[in-house]
Amino acid sequence: MPRILISDGMSDEAIRKLRELEYEVIEKHYSQDELLSGVLNNYDAIIVRSATKLNGQVLSTVEEGKGIKFIGRAGVGVDNINIEEATKKKIVVCNTPQSSTQSVVELTIGHLISSTRHIATGDRKLRKNIWAKKELRGTELSGKNLGLVGFGRIAQGVSKVASALGMNIHCYDPFIDESIANENNCTIHANVNDLFKNCTHISVHCSLNKDTYHLVNQERINMMPEYGFDGSKCGRHIVNCARGGIIDEEGAFIALNNGDLMSLALDVYENEPLYKSRLIELENFHGSPHIGASTVEAQNRIGQEIVTLLKDFFSDKRPPN
Amino acid sequence: MPRILISDGMSDEAIRKLRELEYEVIEKHYSQDELLSGVLNNYDAIIVRSATKLNGQVLSTVEEGKGIKFIGRAGVGVDNINIEEATKKKIVVCNTPQSSTQSVVELTIGHLISSTRHIATGDRKLRKNIWAKKELRGTELSGKNLGLVGFGRIAQGVSKVASALGMNIHCYDPFIDESIANENNCTIHANVNDLFKNCTHISVHCSLNKDTYHLVNQERINMMPEYGFDGSKCGRHIVNCARGGIIDEEGAFIALNNGDLMSLALDVYENEPLYKSRLIELENFHGSPHIGASTVEAQNRIGQEIVTLLKDFFSDKRPPN
Repeated sequence: MPRILISDGMSDEAIRKLRELEYEVIEKHYSQDELLSGVLNNYDAIIVRSATKLNGQVLSTVEEGKGIKFIGRAGVGVDNINIEEATKKKIVVCNTPQSSTQSVVELTIGHLISSTRHIATGDRKLRKNIWAKKELRGTELSGKNLGLVGFGRIAQGVSKVASALGMNIHCYDPFIDESIANENNCTIHANVNDLFKNCTHISVHCSLNKDTYHLVNQERINMMPEYGFDGSKCGRHIVNCARGGIIDEEGAFIALNNGDLMSLALDVYENEPLYKSRLIELENFHGSPHIGASTVEAQNRIGQEIVTLLKDFFSDKRPPN
Repeated sequence: MPRILISDGMSDEAIRKLRELEYEVIEKHYSQDELLSGVLNNYDAIIVRSATKLNGQVLSTVEEGKGIKFIGRAGVGVDNINIEEATKKKIVVCNTPQSSTQSVVELTIGHLISSTRHIATGDRKLRKNIWAKKELRGTELSGKNLGLVGFGRIAQGVSKVASALGMNIHCYDPFIDESIANENNCTIHANVNDLFKNCTHISVHCSLNKDTYHLVNQERINMMPEYGFDGSKCGRHIVNCARGGIIDEEGAFIALNNGDLMSLALDVYENEPLYKSRLIELENFHGSPHIGASTVEAQNRIGQEIVTLLKDFFSDKRPPN
């Protein structure tokens, strides 16, 4: 039976199901050196999250016909997998793009409100017995324009909740399906700059590639208006629960520090884990440690989806993603 | 012209408008001793938020026909004003119940997601350079029952956003308008216990009175289910952005500490300012310093409403609230 390596963990239920299928399941996280030494030739498939880096060097150690034939990414982004090298080795790569949508949507809305209402700051001060009621005046999301960079499944989910909060939805997406944008009452912009010029609040929902690297930078932050369409001065707010590197953290730091940017909320960073970043010196920054998909529900759905993908692969059905 | 005392601050725009009406506006916060010494006889009206305590003793110093004839509460709750004594002295008391609705709605949703996704905790750890990705697994709001204690304007606003997040809405309100509940797809419960027995998430939106004092207590917390209707184990979550005292903080502390309660988020407390509470020792508590109405937009609307109320009062029109 197929030997499956679970490299970055998976839901207990999914592992139980794989064992019911009589697959041999090994839960083990190898170091980069071990991966380079060719251990992938001991398995038929590997399931990773983002911690395991299957770069070109690692994948070049795989012997065709002997080593892994399938890489399952338990999550969305595949920037930790060298697709080109995998293709060369005829390894099938699948991800689970839909399983974590709702979890990321909820975290994005949580970060938006935490920013505009100083939730992390208020709590931090309470824990120091400082009652910062007067200095923590916030602003409402209602009556403001939310600019979504990308309008895929997650952005569409965010737009539904943000609309219920009274925001107007704007987006930029070079691959946009106009009918979906129209269904969501979303104003489409022809380029990124126009999006920034129209929105006091920006949320990033695209993948990281050479076109989106540092797409959010100091110059574009300064294009954003500081007043909502309701006339109130809310300042500029940016959230990123998509991928690190889309925001130029150095530029954002400067804008936060000089007051051009009112708040920044990040779940993802240019370098993870975040360590000794200057951002944490600032009161108007707050962050979470890349937990967009980190919910019981998303991990269960991801596990179920991986089980289905493996089952289909090893019974010779073509996987969808 | 009327002399108006602004005791706890008001929006600049509203003060400017009062001066345009040629009212004499004095911005000054008196101590409780000064209030007891009869200073209210130097004014025709006083505008307070929650900091100024106009209790029976203070109001008994007012001389009818000479002192204040009007108390404006820039906000909702009037528990800092002794209405009985005010009535005796023929002082009209008005509040501005609608102005802060949206701000409280947004803070409530923000606290709900901050609880289920550990936003304050994650940020606190990031600032200590701790990448707590693994331990901060959360749960989704989608697929869960939200129980609203009270179904007035704020609860209705919360229900709209929570529905967009995929929650099912339940409520208990002895004064409920059933047609409004039906419009909001809200399941009405006949008593408080039934509400708790059906909901993994509870948010408080009633006023504080003898019937609601310690309405949320350890016994009721233990009535709540720990699984959502989607089958996932999310635990029990409670939010209070209404009034301190509705939650028994001692009981909630015990439930949080022994794991019966998964999270508690408070904007209001039994004693404010919160100081040296045991709650801040717990990771699964987070709080804000009574900032429900503390937004630029709410304060502007409150100011405008107070101006209208004063104008109507001093031109002999009957105020609405």
